[in-house]
Amino acid sequence: MIIIMRAGAPKAHAERIVQEIETFKLTPVPMFGVERTVIAVIGDERNLSINQLEAFPGVEKVMRVLKPYKLVSRETKKEKTVITVNGVKIGHEKVVAAMAGPCSVESEEQMEEVCSKLQKLGIKLLRGGAYKPRTGPYSFQGLGPEGLDIMRRAADRHGMAVITEVLDIRDIDEVAAKADILQIGTRNMQNYALLKEVGKIQKPIMLKRGMNSTIEEWLLAAEYILANGNPNVILCERGIRTFEDATRNTLAIDAVPLVKELSHLPVIIDPTHGTGKKSLIEPMTKAGIAAGADGFIIEVHPNPEAALSDAQQQITPKEFATLLKNCKVIAQAVNKEIK
Amino acid sequence: MIIIMRAGAPKAHAERIVQEIETFKLTPVPMFGVERTVIAVIGDERNLSINQLEAFPGVEKVMRVLKPYKLVSRETKKEKTVITVNGVKIGHEKVVAAMAGPCSVESEEQMEEVCSKLQKLGIKLLRGGAYKPRTGPYSFQGLGPEGLDIMRRAADRHGMAVITEVLDIRDIDEVAAKADILQIGTRNMQNYALLKEVGKIQKPIMLKRGMNSTIEEWLLAAEYILANGNPNVILCERGIRTFEDATRNTLAIDAVPLVKELSHLPVIIDPTHGTGKKSLIEPMTKAGIAAGADGFIIEVHPNPEAALSDAQQQITPKEFATLLKNCKVIAQAVNKEIK
Amino acid sequence: MIIIMRAGAPKAHAERIVQEIETFKLTPVPMFGVERTVIAVIGDERNLSINQLEAFPGVEKVMRVLKPYKLVSRETKKEKTVITVNGVKIGHEKVVAAMAGPCSVESEEQMEEVCSKLQKLGIKLLRGGAYKPRTGPYSFQGLGPEGLDIMRRAADRHGMAVITEVLDIRDIDEVAAKADILQIGTRNMQNYALLKEVGKIQKPIMLKRGMNSTIEEWLLAAEYILANGNPNVILCERGIRTFEDATRNTLAIDAVPLVKELSHLPVIIDPTHGTGKKSLIEPMTKAGIAAGADGFIIEVHPNPEAALSDAQQQITPKEFATLLKNCKVIAQAVNKEIK
Amino acid sequence: MIIIMRAGAPKAHAERIVQEIETFKLTPVPMFGVERTVIAVIGDERNLSINQLEAFPGVEKVMRVLKPYKLVSRETKKEKTVITVNGVKIGHEKVVAAMAGPCSVESEEQMEEVCSKLQKLGIKLLRGGAYKPRTGPYSFQGLGPEGLDIMRRAADRHGMAVITEVLDIRDIDEVAAKADILQIGTRNMQNYALLKEVGKIQKPIMLKRGMNSTIEEWLLAAEYILANGNPNVILCERGIRTFEDATRNTLAIDAVPLVKELSHLPVIIDPTHGTGKKSLIEPMTKAGIAAGADGFIIEVHPNPEAALSDAQQQITPKEFATLLKNCKVIAQAVNKEIK
Repeated sequence: MIIIMRAGAPKAHAERIVQEIETFKLTPVPMFGVERTVIAVIGDERNLSINQLEAFPGVEKVMRVLKPYKLVSRETKKEKTVITVNGVKIGHEKVVAAMAGPCSVESEEQMEEVCSKLQKLGIKLLRGGAYKPRTGPYSFQGLGPEGLDIMRRAADRHGMAVITEVLDIRDIDEVAAKADILQIGTRNMQNYALLKEVGKIQKPIMLKRGMNSTIEEWLLAAEYILANGNPNVILCERGIRTFEDATRNTLAIDAVPLVKELSHLPVIIDPTHGTGKKSLIEPMTKAGIAAGADGFIIEVHPNPEAALSDAQQQITPKEFATLLKNCKVIAQAVNKEIK
Repeated sequence: MIIIMRAGAPKAHAERIVQEIETFKLTPVPMFGVERTVIAVIGDERNLSINQLEAFPGVEKVMRVLKPYKLVSRETKKEKTVITVNGVKIGHEKVVAAMAGPCSVESEEQMEEVCSKLQKLGIKLLRGGAYKPRTGPYSFQGLGPEGLDIMRRAADRHGMAVITEVLDIRDIDEVAAKADILQIGTRNMQNYALLKEVGKIQKPIMLKRGMNSTIEEWLLAAEYILANGNPNVILCERGIRTFEDATRNTLAIDAVPLVKELSHLPVIIDPTHGTGKKSLIEPMTKAGIAAGADGFIIEVHPNPEAALSDAQQQITPKEFATLLKNCKVIAQAVNKEIK
Repeated sequence: MIIIMRAGAPKAHAERIVQEIETFKLTPVPMFGVERTVIAVIGDERNLSINQLEAFPGVEKVMRVLKPYKLVSRETKKEKTVITVNGVKIGHEKVVAAMAGPCSVESEEQMEEVCSKLQKLGIKLLRGGAYKPRTGPYSFQGLGPEGLDIMRRAADRHGMAVITEVLDIRDIDEVAAKADILQIGTRNMQNYALLKEVGKIQKPIMLKRGMNSTIEEWLLAAEYILANGNPNVILCERGIRTFEDATRNTLAIDAVPLVKELSHLPVIIDPTHGTGKKSLIEPMTKAGIAAGADGFIIEVHPNPEAALSDAQQQITPKEFATLLKNCKVIAQAVNKEIK
Repeated sequence: MIIIMRAGAPKAHAERIVQEIETFKLTPVPMFGVERTVIAVIGDERNLSINQLEAFPGVEKVMRVLKPYKLVSRETKKEKTVITVNGVKIGHEKVVAAMAGPCSVESEEQMEEVCSKLQKLGIKLLRGGAYKPRTGPYSFQGLGPEGLDIMRRAADRHGMAVITEVLDIRDIDEVAAKADILQIGTRNMQNYALLKEVGKIQKPIMLKRGMNSTIEEWLLAAEYILANGNPNVILCERGIRTFEDATRNTLAIDAVPLVKELSHLPVIIDPTHGTGKKSLIEPMTKAGIAAGADGFIIEVHPNPEAALSDAQQQITPKEFATLLKNCKVIAQAVNKEIK
């Protein structure tokens, strides 16, 4: 940690900081420059609080040297985390994991139709929403437990694993009983009560990036899950909110290689929500694979026009088949296979 | 609702939209222009989904005409909502409500000290955190139930009402039993499970704006609470996230007059989190009052340097007294009184 | 400057940095921590380039300690800069400078009408655009030299000074001959060729903040003008671009007190462009004055509906008179007078 | 254009709008709904100003139906624009154009070294800065005319074409005499004086996206160049400014496929400035190619640590050779060749 004192701050102020640092059994190194004094701290600064030091008189700014997360960090664990679900090794250096399915589970027929088609395309991981976080209270909120059952049965009939979102702490047990991967959505990335609870189970958790969260905050949210005991976290970049309004979000492809430098966790992309525009889904999936993504999750609906949510951004099984074909070539170019 | 078809879309596409609209008992008005067809919809479009219509072939864009919220809207209820807590009429045209207290409840002594000083300044509404949402899992997470008790006792000794944050559905009953106003924090603004549950009680809810949320999304979050039965919502602008890094957030003062045009709910400001910088708290409080805010909430700590959270942005009771004195002049200038 | 080495970087890498720093006659202080090495630099780091040091092997991050600007800094010049134009002391602690006039100069009649009304309200500083920066090439681009002449004559008839934008280096002489303050617009804040040239004259320059520029970049743009010889710079906060789309921009009121801490230059606000919405102009002007702004600039048009640019955000002289009356009370509350 | 009246606006207000529209020889279609009146306009709305209509009493909002640009639009010109420079067909469906070279031209030796290495890699398009736009006035501002000469000679010796930035209208002739492509930088994207002047020559112009500009504003900036007579515009996505601070900018890969839908102009990416981080350059170049970019521009310096600008983000010729090799595989996967 580096503490920068204000220009002209009296020496006593710096001395008080020095004392404070020593209280924490860390070594302060004060440097008295011409314009201002700077105090460096040697030792594990994670015990010190930036905010607290900034409250001391004479302090202008405090800068961290170490990353604030530990368990998710590549410095802590060098080898990549690989999470195997239904035979798909998510995070493996040769694998691009494919997850597909409708935004919302709507009916037995809908799920049967989409699963039978996805199965033919070799898809092993089925997505679908039973509990839906909707911006307005009057929008369709999902079928709930019934939706979970429908999805589970459809997945079982077609040899697929299930990934679905959990919104409410009270639903965790039920969702964990029916699903193979639990999703924490973008609006809940900093719902710490929920993060702590999914940290107490062992099922894999897919943690979407908050649409306005920095990569550091995202990794800290993952740290909550690991710190509570669950090491099986898959990160998912799903688009951030920017000033651009031609797309629903800006899919931050650069988050893929950057997160892979910082963390050992797998990172996949969600081009459906990341763009909100059908025509951009295929090029952005290709971009993500080329940049090293460990997988992708795409909304596929047998009849998007009749979908009960996110109709404008879901593609048909036929369109998805084309996408898959075109993406396989990119996967090969980076020595991977879509599973 | 206005549906804009793509240039060159066949007439059949427009006709299909027309049929769809009629299904909802609304009146479509197709207009065939030179470059493209536009279809207007007459009737209450809230039953129609933009996303669904955008999924139809030939559609380029769908634009809403009506606001998506209803209960919180000034068009629905012309007179302002006034919520009285401990004698303070929050939302009243002559009142600026003052809420103050430490970021976190830390001890009986801390609360006694701050309350005795706030009481002398005439403050009726005490803030303090018992459950704390922290970006990292290793930061102090609040005293929990014990903190609630400490705060309640301190408030009672000094004739103050309590406002405190609730993070977890399971804590609502306990928090509602001890507090007079429940706060939903910025990270939980779209935690719909939580919004629905606080909609089922009648205690006033202070809903902070999501740091990444538009004003429309904020009003829709409030709509969740009202739609579940609780009309007592106070909105709180607490700063949005922008590219600027010289401050912790950008306090969007313009949200105050804008929300007052759109909604009948009271709207207050939080200059502490909105700036993250002690020296900006007073000028921004003045700015908020001048722009019409119904109140403000400020972090005051007897000894900020020793605070267990947000140390750098809490002010002392003495600094708060000066702020209060200077803000009273502004309140008078807009014909209000700080209560 | 603080240089943070990567975890595990060999000692030779740190030694190379140490040598490099010594080349610049600065004192390096290397600290070998448990996880990584940190090197502090004592001396005026402005000669060192962050980018260059970041290119050295083993370097993770370089952090600046000193501010990158000097002439505009409050640390360099303690007393506030006051710029007097037509008797109005812009930047004086007792003064709120009022600038008003139409977006575009359109005709002799329009300017006569607006000036005669502004004069009655005591306005001394007339704004008006002769050269207009328009997003699209097909929009009205301003009357050019003729517009300058019309505005000058109208101002002279009514004892007013002129502030107008200059877009093109080739127009500086002409604009400087006719205007009393030259405005650099938000889109040209980083047009360094233009900044250098207006730095070579002595007329006051009003430098608008780039709509996506940080406060540091804004002060560096002002530094360009001062470094070229012109100390007469007025800063103008005019709204930044954020994700919110309910307003044209988000007027960052917090920039007013923050810039006044960092710099000695006067800072005013532009609530017209900052909000893009008539109904928000008055509350935001009040907010700015309450927060300490040295002035404001507002678009006033005798007949906004017929305006050739920015029609939706210009107010009438009558509306401006009301605004002025209401703002005077706020100015008094902060011990200032609107001039 | 669609005009939405306020709820409760008197009929006379709508009638006045109807009259105004008829003045422009367009056909108004008023629709009187239950809650509010909506007026659609049939005909080429580009003659109407949104701002002007929004200034009329009773108007709540005006929405455009047509795009505001014309010449750059794919609706105007179906076939893609291909611009051939030094034998490289920029914008051709089978080509990924490669541009490389140092941030700044520093010396004859530096340029000779980099060119001889780039030539061996088959690079035909040399980038290099002679005039540099720097955030601060004390940074290296480029060698100017001498830099142009050095770069031209080096390019000629190695059979390369030159692309370089022009900052100042007064330099256009000289830069056009020495360079094959003129670059307009991100800070000048809305420097309309400069756009108009480069519109009057015929040399290809590479127009970088403003770091804070929407895609629509970018296309309107290109429209300025085309409207002034120069159809040879190459668009370059170079990263936008977002809240994320782990990278210098967020390279908006989605802009590539989106712009190709909207416009016939070639669009390339700049992963160097788009990320500001060496390790992200290769993955983001791959991502851009996979998403359909017509080319890329990358900063290559023989000795980045000694570079006079942007040292931290320039790669060595050796690193560039590896990047090129890895990107070729991606190009092949999308049926293209890097030229």
